[in-house]
Amino acid sequence: MDPQYITPFIRSIQNVFSTMLRMPVTINQPTIKKGASAAYDVSGIIGMSGDVVGSVVLSFPKETAQKLITAFCGMEFPSDSPDFADAVGELVNMISGSAKGMFVDKNVSISCPSVVIGPGHHINTRSDTPCVSIPCSTSQGDLAIEIAIREAVANAGAKPGTQAA
Amino acid sequence: MDPQYITPFIRSIQNVFSTMLRMPVTINQPTIKKGASAAYDVSGIIGMSGDVVGSVVLSFPKETAQKLITAFCGMEFPSDSPDFADAVGELVNMISGSAKGMFVDKNVSISCPSVVIGPGHHINTRSDTPCVSIPCSTSQGDLAIEIAIREAVANAGAKPGTQAA
Repeated sequence: MDPQYITPFIRSIQNVFSTMLRMPVTINQPTIKKGASAAYDVSGIIGMSGDVVGSVVLSFPKETAQKLITAFCGMEFPSDSPDFADAVGELVNMISGSAKGMFVDKNVSISCPSVVIGPGHHINTRSDTPCVSIPCSTSQGDLAIEIAIREAVANAGAKPGTQAA
Repeated sequence: MDPQYITPFIRSIQNVFSTMLRMPVTINQPTIKKGASAAYDVSGIIGMSGDVVGSVVLSFPKETAQKLITAFCGMEFPSDSPDFADAVGELVNMISGSAKGMFVDKNVSISCPSVVIGPGHHINTRSDTPCVSIPCSTSQGDLAIEIAIREAVANAGAKPGTQAA
C-alpha cells in the first residue's frame, strides 16, 4: 500500500488523541495484516469511497475503550449504552475525517461509523485489498487502527457483480 | 426514514437471493431498531456516502451464514477462512450495489465491505440516524438487513468535528 495513505492516519490519530483526549499516543511498527485480525471487544468502522475505497477500523479491548471514552467525553458511559457506541463512532469519525483532509488531490467520502461491540470479534476486510494494522499505545492501554484502502479503479479486476464505488 | 430508501433494499435482497442463491427470501415486518440490535455471529457492513450517508448491515447466525455462503459459492468454506469472509462481503456488496442503483436522482457511493465474525456481537449505528431492521426468512435460516441511512446535510446538526461526508 502506498505510504501516502498511511501517514495521514498516523498524523490524525496523534492530533485527535492529543487535542481531544489530552493523551499522547505512541505509534508502533505498522504491519501488513494477513488473515483474521487480533480479536477485539470494541471496534469502530468507517467506510471510504470515491477515489480511494476501503475501510478504516479502530479497535480496542473493552477496558481500554471505556477509559479512552471517559477521557474523550469527560464522563463515564456504560459500555452497553448508545452514548458509548456514539462516542466510539465519533472518535473513528474524527480520525478518518481528519485523515481524509490530508489526502491531496483525492476526492474521498467517508460513511457514518458503525460500532461493533462483542467480546473477541474479528474484522475481516476484502482479501484483495491490503490491510495495514498500526498498533498504538497509550497510558490507558493499547489499541489498533487498521486501514484497508486502495485506489478506486473502474471495476478493473473486480469480481463479477462488484460495485465497490 | 423515507420508505424510498427501504424499498430498494427489499427488492435487491430478493433479486440477489433468487438469482445468486436460487433461494426465495421472505421479507418480514420491518421495525425501527432501538438501542442495541439482536446479537449475531456474522455481519457484513457497507458504508454509504454521497447524497445519502449511513451504513447497511447484513447479519446472520453462524450456521445460517455457512449454509447461505455454500449456496452462494457452490462450495463450502470454513467460517474462519478469508474466502468465507470475502463471500459474506460480496453478498452485502451485491445487495447494496443493486439497491444503490435504484436510488433515483441520488449520487451515492458505497465502500468496500467489512465482515465481522464473533459470537453474539452487536452492531450499533449512530443514534441520530434512524435504523430500520428488516427480518428475512429463508429455507436455510433467518437473517436481518439493517439500514441506517439519511440524507446528507452539509454538517447541519452534526456534532462538533463530525465530517460525515
